[in-house]
Amino acid sequence: MSDLTHFDDEGASRMVDVGDKEVTSRTAIAESFVTMQPETQRLILDRQISKGDVLEIARIAGIMATKKTPELIPLCHPLSINSVRLDFAPQNETTIRIESTVKVDGKTGVEMEALTAVSIAALTIYDMCKAVDRAMSLGPTRLVEKSGGKSGHYIREPH
Amino acid sequence: MSDLTHFDDEGASRMVDVGDKEVTSRTAIAESFVTMQPETQRLILDRQISKGDVLEIARIAGIMATKKTPELIPLCHPLSINSVRLDFAPQNETTIRIESTVKVDGKTGVEMEALTAVSIAALTIYDMCKAVDRAMSLGPTRLVEKSGGKSGHYIREPH
Amino acid sequence: MSDLTHFDDEGASRMVDVGDKEVTSRTAIAESFVTMQPETQRLILDRQISKGDVLEIARIAGIMATKKTPELIPLCHPLSINSVRLDFAPQNETTIRIESTVKVDGKTGVEMEALTAVSIAALTIYDMCKAVDRAMSLGPTRLVEKSGGKSGHYIREPH
Amino acid sequence: MSDLTHFDDEGASRMVDVGDKEVTSRTAIAESFVTMQPETQRLILDRQISKGDVLEIARIAGIMATKKTPELIPLCHPLSINSVRLDFAPQNETTIRIESTVKVDGKTGVEMEALTAVSIAALTIYDMCKAVDRAMSLGPTRLVEKSGGKSGHYIREPH
Amino acid sequence: MSDLTHFDDEGASRMVDVGDKEVTSRTAIAESFVTMQPETQRLILDRQISKGDVLEIARIAGIMATKKTPELIPLCHPLSINSVRLDFAPQNETTIRIESTVKVDGKTGVEMEALTAVSIAALTIYDMCKAVDRAMSLGPTRLVEKSGGKSGHYIREPH
Amino acid sequence: MSDLTHFDDEGASRMVDVGDKEVTSRTAIAESFVTMQPETQRLILDRQISKGDVLEIARIAGIMATKKTPELIPLCHPLSINSVRLDFAPQNETTIRIESTVKVDGKTGVEMEALTAVSIAALTIYDMCKAVDRAMSLGPTRLVEKSGGKSGHYIREPH
Repeated sequence: MSDLTHFDDEGASRMVDVGDKEVTSRTAIAESFVTMQPETQRLILDRQISKGDVLEIARIAGIMATKKTPELIPLCHPLSINSVRLDFAPQNETTIRIESTVKVDGKTGVEMEALTAVSIAALTIYDMCKAVDRAMSLGPTRLVEKSGGKSGHYIREPH
Repeated sequence: MSDLTHFDDEGASRMVDVGDKEVTSRTAIAESFVTMQPETQRLILDRQISKGDVLEIARIAGIMATKKTPELIPLCHPLSINSVRLDFAPQNETTIRIESTVKVDGKTGVEMEALTAVSIAALTIYDMCKAVDRAMSLGPTRLVEKSGGKSGHYIREPH
Repeated sequence: MSDLTHFDDEGASRMVDVGDKEVTSRTAIAESFVTMQPETQRLILDRQISKGDVLEIARIAGIMATKKTPELIPLCHPLSINSVRLDFAPQNETTIRIESTVKVDGKTGVEMEALTAVSIAALTIYDMCKAVDRAMSLGPTRLVEKSGGKSGHYIREPH
Repeated sequence: MSDLTHFDDEGASRMVDVGDKEVTSRTAIAESFVTMQPETQRLILDRQISKGDVLEIARIAGIMATKKTPELIPLCHPLSINSVRLDFAPQNETTIRIESTVKVDGKTGVEMEALTAVSIAALTIYDMCKAVDRAMSLGPTRLVEKSGGKSGHYIREPH
Repeated sequence: MSDLTHFDDEGASRMVDVGDKEVTSRTAIAESFVTMQPETQRLILDRQISKGDVLEIARIAGIMATKKTPELIPLCHPLSINSVRLDFAPQNETTIRIESTVKVDGKTGVEMEALTAVSIAALTIYDMCKAVDRAMSLGPTRLVEKSGGKSGHYIREPH
Repeated sequence: MSDLTHFDDEGASRMVDVGDKEVTSRTAIAESFVTMQPETQRLILDRQISKGDVLEIARIAGIMATKKTPELIPLCHPLSINSVRLDFAPQNETTIRIESTVKVDGKTGVEMEALTAVSIAALTIYDMCKAVDRAMSLGPTRLVEKSGGKSGHYIREPH
């Protein structure tokens, strides 16, 4: 197991130097989940059809958070993102799955952007529904897939 | 089950009016978890002792994110937070638990601040260790306890 | 006509001292307009019903911008806003009117917050429709009404 | 009339993928207007000569807002801007015209940056003069010219 | 000498709890200095009179940075500032002194806001003049005076 | 002595056009100093070993501030930074020296990023120790070295 690259030999944290890395097309896909009461999910899915739209607001929050990733994660590099998309799908009657896909042409990957997008989208769903279901649970949040860059194609193993 | 307060009668989203609510002392406690390879956890705990300190950086990221909550969660009110603290503790050889405690004297609670703090702290741990353990999993993230305000004292039931 | 309060006697700009002002409940209402091709408006209103929702995204952008007002307008005071709402209504077949209502309990008013909300909502509509109608025109943007504080109730005269 | 590109086939909003677009030199020019009492304009123009300088502060606010465009407009791409300039000129005794010119070498244009610059500059003029002229009106705000990129050179028609 | 309050008994950093502190009127005054070539100072003072205005831009940057202090200094509390002012005065032919005065009604002081204001104003002067004088030196930056709050009135001793 | 490039011929400030400049690898190194009571320094260095860590928090604050430079310095260009590092070393029993190294592949240099990093790191040390030593002094802050770009290699002369 190699070392933690965010520290130098003396243990000082740093933003890793990516100056010698190549600019390549990189994609990251992440997922998260929101687990809730069946009534809460009905309320979300129903309002989506009729009146308000919890998921559209969560989507916008997730997209905007993608652009804030380097402000939030201390050692993340600022990147000029090419695209972001978020999808929401009910998994069963108590769980909604969130998936983000982020792309960049850059010297470093966008895993943190993809993970931040789903995390903030999940938090936004919590915020909008907390008055009716305070016990909602967020996660697991994890990287699904990653391509581009020297470390190659990664696909999370089913578990 | 009452309605989603973030929407008016026509389904338009809004920042809920808290003008008539009382200013009271409010506290929220949230938790999240990071699950990883045992080697990764050893690396985190070991470096903490010797050289770099993943958890201290995650702590600072979590505290700073608390202050950014209203920028991240679209319908959250801006609040003048009184205090934030984050604690980290290994649960077992593969999981670290993160707990945040946020306090405010305000017209609305700080659940979202507490949940944002642990979410960003978890993402920061991921960022710093992803070079050695890309499959780390974040969450479940949830509200543990909340006090102050009209809705009273809430403690999450054991599950 | 009195002087520009944002400058001292030597012409230096400053954030005006509101320390001696009373905390009162203050409300500001502002409006703006987006003028476009009839086809563009149909596209906006139609998509609102069927698939995407330009106005909901503009609404979220406006609400989030309200919270950013003191970051954008150099001499604005930071305020703990109580509520924000934005409404959209077609005026005729080429114009959509945007109205914001912002409330605060504070030492200074929220006119700039209300005006910023409608301005950013209008810009967001432009952004989402510019691929089909680059000539859209935004404004006039103006204060409609203001209450609370020493300067009393203001209602814009019809023009 | 083509479709709204910020939505996918199912109506979900997204940050459009610009990964396949070429990096080219792009320029956008936008304008806005502030209409006020003649006394207010005299105060602005006079102070500019003698003591304070409303327009210089509005200029700085506009330039800084240009850099904040992707934080404000939800689906805007972050861009590394090459240059920004803002000019102010009285049109007549009650109206000041604001013009911005923004340049970038990028995969997408800077129309939103140019429009945001003049909008925030106009709001800043309002803020600094609102104590003496609450009825000031901002706009129309519109794109004047745009060059670079596949969609070619656009010049707004006189109206 | 008492302990560092930003750490708890186990050495974990935290945002100190100010919940039990009283809201009082607090003022902080800070200073910084920019030392440069005499020609650079002439250029700054001359342009101020004739055409551009380095110091006015530095003033705006300093005022805006005051509002960003809790985003910059990790353990700072967010505060609703009442007023900010910055003054610039040549000390001699090579040095310009910057002084900030920041006021708040709050539970904690505004020393960091005042120090951040002069620091960013000094950096802005550097930025605007660096093309002609790269060797400019910034500082010493220090707290001049502080009043309000339990710790009482502090005035820096002459040195 | 050449002119101040941040102003045009009429004295209007602007973000200088870097469109015609080449993308090259650029590095900037800056330094600052914090002068304090010997007891304060002992407290910082001692805690670093045993419990809390003032310098690690200052380091994170400085790295994060590097990414905020274009938000703080009005006419600075946004840049995609390749790396940031900050080092701290006691100079004598009352002074700690801070050094930052920032690298970019860009059309303009990173002097302001390097200077902002050390300034915010110094302010953070002040914040964490102000309860025990309010008279701490920050600076001088200055550019140590700069390479890349048309203006060539600059090394500050010893003084």
